[in-house]
Amino acid sequence: ADLAACDGAEQRNGQLTKPPGALGRLEELAIWYAGWRGSARPTLEAPQIVIFAGNHGVCAQGVSAFPSEVTVQMVANFEHGGAAINQLAKAFGASMTVHALELDRPTEDFTKAPAMSERDCVTALQTGWDAVDPSADLLVTGEMGIGNTTSGAALGAALFGGAGEDWVGRGTGVDDAGLANKARVVDEGLALHASRDPLEILRCMGGRELAAMAGAIAAARAHRIPVILDGFICTAAASVLEKTQSGALDHCVAGHLSAEGAHGKMLEGLGKEPLLSLGLRLGEGSGAAAAIGVLKAAVACHSGMATFAEAGVSDG
Amino acid sequence: ADLAACDGAEQRNGQLTKPPGALGRLEELAIWYAGWRGSARPTLEAPQIVIFAGNHGVCAQGVSAFPSEVTVQMVANFEHGGAAINQLAKAFGASMTVHALELDRPTEDFTKAPAMSERDCVTALQTGWDAVDPSADLLVTGEMGIGNTTSGAALGAALFGGAGEDWVGRGTGVDDAGLANKARVVDEGLALHASRDPLEILRCMGGRELAAMAGAIAAARAHRIPVILDGFICTAAASVLEKTQSGALDHCVAGHLSAEGAHGKMLEGLGKEPLLSLGLRLGEGSGAAAAIGVLKAAVACHSGMATFAEAGVSDG
Repeated sequence: ADLAACDGAEQRNGQLTKPPGALGRLEELAIWYAGWRGSARPTLEAPQIVIFAGNHGVCAQGVSAFPSEVTVQMVANFEHGGAAINQLAKAFGASMTVHALELDRPTEDFTKAPAMSERDCVTALQTGWDAVDPSADLLVTGEMGIGNTTSGAALGAALFGGAGEDWVGRGTGVDDAGLANKARVVDEGLALHASRDPLEILRCMGGRELAAMAGAIAAARAHRIPVILDGFICTAAASVLEKTQSGALDHCVAGHLSAEGAHGKMLEGLGKEPLLSLGLRLGEGSGAAAAIGVLKAAVACHSGMATFAEAGVSDG
Repeated sequence: ADLAACDGAEQRNGQLTKPPGALGRLEELAIWYAGWRGSARPTLEAPQIVIFAGNHGVCAQGVSAFPSEVTVQMVANFEHGGAAINQLAKAFGASMTVHALELDRPTEDFTKAPAMSERDCVTALQTGWDAVDPSADLLVTGEMGIGNTTSGAALGAALFGGAGEDWVGRGTGVDDAGLANKARVVDEGLALHASRDPLEILRCMGGRELAAMAGAIAAARAHRIPVILDGFICTAAASVLEKTQSGALDHCVAGHLSAEGAHGKMLEGLGKEPLLSLGLRLGEGSGAAAAIGVLKAAVACHSGMATFAEAGVSDG
């Protein structure tokens, strides 16, 4: 972050026509955003949403309530403007692109083999990196991939410690037996793939859309574009970066707390407090997109308000 | 609420391209909004913010960190577009009007006399009622009034029970001695004004801007306009309606949890769960305005998404 911009933003914040601290977390958000944008009085006008879709070999283990065909069907829904994320993009003035990542060639079943070859993983990371528009001033990464909460749980366990049962959740809606099955699948993955190198964990138990999200979030850092993290899968993908280099997610804020059980624990592991907690568990970047309004509110107040001197208001 | 519209909205919600319940509270919000708007597929395009300002005789008791002159100065700031609420109105496409309520004639010091005469109280209620645009599709009521957290605390204690110390907070920033002083002032008010009739409590210990907010929220009900409640003062004013008639706030949702200490207890008393919890304590309707984005997100998803049949997506 740009320390001069942070200082300038902090100074400006202290002069705005409100009691000190009265805008709560909006003040802190605006200063954080100012630092990454390199301006003490930034604007937020070009948010970008990138959605990555991938299919998962681990679906052969019966981990999802929905069939794998739904991934490609939902990509068509994104392209035709019918999904939740399309409505949220429109509501908050965000551009949106959708990247279907070799849906007819799912990852390998990670209970049997690494999910991706090195080449596949690097290709997905690169696709994610390239998907980011350098002129965007905010990034949301979303995903669609039937079976990917199981990948997310495997990443959580491998990156933060614990077993399958500590990290699996109901995803799109599995029952108790389905939940136990997901835990078994994660435990088998953890046993088969012993490396605890974060990128190797991503390759062995992640998926193309997770790798692409990690690539996009890293690209945003290079372009000084702040990121709003979405829920469980997005946070799992982002955690690969943080575990590779501490501080790698300083340009990211947690958009929401997902209803997917272990998301709160993962955010705690990253030291991130979510902006919203509304029980969403859809993916698609929907929770992060819903939080765009909060960040817009923060930046609008910070950059638009009059100072005590400008407004002729007594400052107490 | 319109039960046919609620039913229609609920049915539509079940057909949208997402796992059941995956949009969490956004689903419940959209159905609630649909019911009040009388349409199973409503739009949210004309939010209105009304700000009421009043001065408080109880400032003579030293209850605020800011001088009373700040009320009129902030009204000018609202009129010139420099306050936080102006930026939020712009960010969320809301219209905004400001109503200065006889600022040169403060209410009486409620430790010595009723804050308002019956005539003053009715005039303020009527001003609030008349301020609501019947063609709005969402209402936010905000306030400005140096000293009014003390009025809010007095209303909280009188309406929900308890003593001054249970309901006072730091407002714009009083210290420990200031907090104890506010509790004393509230206790003196409670002792002097024995009636526990909600409207009489409003008249004796409220203020013009609180009465106006109550009038506006009642008018919104008559016009079937959903309301996002703001923080401590707004919720105190709204509570007068709920205590007058149970269910009177069914058309209202709590926009945020204020950092003003007793707001959470007041929302619990009303059975309302806040949409946001970001530590705001500014007033002006700012917390409610920040939550407009959440409601917009909910309505956009509900009314804009494709159904499983429309999108050709398998529904699990």
